[in-house]
Amino acid sequence: MADVKVEIGQEIQQSAAEAARVLARIFASRKVLAVNLVSSPGSGKTTLIEAMIDRLAGRKRIAVVEGDIETEIDSERIRKHGVQVHQITTRSACHIPPELLVKALGHLDLDAADLLVVENVGNLVCPAEVPLGEDVRIVALSVTEGDEKPLKYPLIFKTSRILVITKTDLLPYVKFSTDAVKTAALAVNPRIEIFETSAVTGEGIAALVDRIEALHAEKAR
Amino acid sequence: MADVKVEIGQEIQQSAAEAARVLARIFASRKVLAVNLVSSPGSGKTTLIEAMIDRLAGRKRIAVVEGDIETEIDSERIRKHGVQVHQITTRSACHIPPELLVKALGHLDLDAADLLVVENVGNLVCPAEVPLGEDVRIVALSVTEGDEKPLKYPLIFKTSRILVITKTDLLPYVKFSTDAVKTAALAVNPRIEIFETSAVTGEGIAALVDRIEALHAEKAR
Repeated sequence: MADVKVEIGQEIQQSAAEAARVLARIFASRKVLAVNLVSSPGSGKTTLIEAMIDRLAGRKRIAVVEGDIETEIDSERIRKHGVQVHQITTRSACHIPPELLVKALGHLDLDAADLLVVENVGNLVCPAEVPLGEDVRIVALSVTEGDEKPLKYPLIFKTSRILVITKTDLLPYVKFSTDAVKTAALAVNPRIEIFETSAVTGEGIAALVDRIEALHAEKAR
Repeated sequence: MADVKVEIGQEIQQSAAEAARVLARIFASRKVLAVNLVSSPGSGKTTLIEAMIDRLAGRKRIAVVEGDIETEIDSERIRKHGVQVHQITTRSACHIPPELLVKALGHLDLDAADLLVVENVGNLVCPAEVPLGEDVRIVALSVTEGDEKPLKYPLIFKTSRILVITKTDLLPYVKFSTDAVKTAALAVNPRIEIFETSAVTGEGIAALVDRIEALHAEKAR
């Protein structure tokens, strides 16, 4: 990772857009598929990552960067799964700044990773405006949050390639129409791919992971 | 409301902090209790306001300001309850700017209101840093979001007077410890008052509304 450190040294002062371009180059040179996972607080991002790690065990090597305002609670959860993980605490920033992600990569061995999953700060607004050089932005939305959210927070759905509906095991207990959320998401982003998942029942995890593997295969080709 | 309009004209150019002071003066002069309701997207803020309106019918006059990035979905829901409501759409801003709230008050008759409930943009980060001249900040957290949230987003819990735990009807179906969230919230804010509520079963709504009425009575004295 020596060359990454050189890049860090050279580029650390630059703007967020430039940092995002540096990140994209780093991911491209290592054929690492970078996933920027965004959602509200409590939509189940960390749980989704845990399910993906378990499903990909022995097939793909995952590294994880966790972003939070405060605490290392999430990285401690991920570390138990035996994968590389680094925690960013953003203090008051409502998203991961790309410059901090560049620094974080200095703590990971990307040559030993096929996928990098970056769990952004829980927020449907700010992360939408700040690309991290990722290949795939995934927005998670739990069925407890309401099916109108794509209309109320359009940019994050517009800029995401994949929508993962989480916590479908709670559908019997909440007012949430899967058809309505799909209609809303497709209205703001006609190309968005939608997966319905539950980390409790396992529904949809295999299909989502297969899709991510296929995206990695395209990139690594 | 002519004098409010004069204040708007005089003060519209000033900083957010000054705008918050203008708001506090407006609320004080009219003995309106201003509530700034904050939470993640989908925690049930609008539903909580609807329950409060129904409970307070005939006792206190409520006016509501709804804040969203896009859409008037929430204000349309509130309008059906027969109370004054005005929608702010913030476009890309992740919180209600106090200057926009000053403008919004020009659309409401505060002399015909005892309470003003401002539903902020769904976000646990930015609204924490931007006071709206409110008397009471209430943070809502649904049981589906996880009991560690006060540790991960401390500022919003530190700056709130009341924590309303919402969707307690879903407790049987999720991993969430009410004791753990109380411990976490009190760790960051030892004076926070905590209410456990469900708009579905009605649990806790009466106790919360009684507390808000008492706070209004203190202010109107």
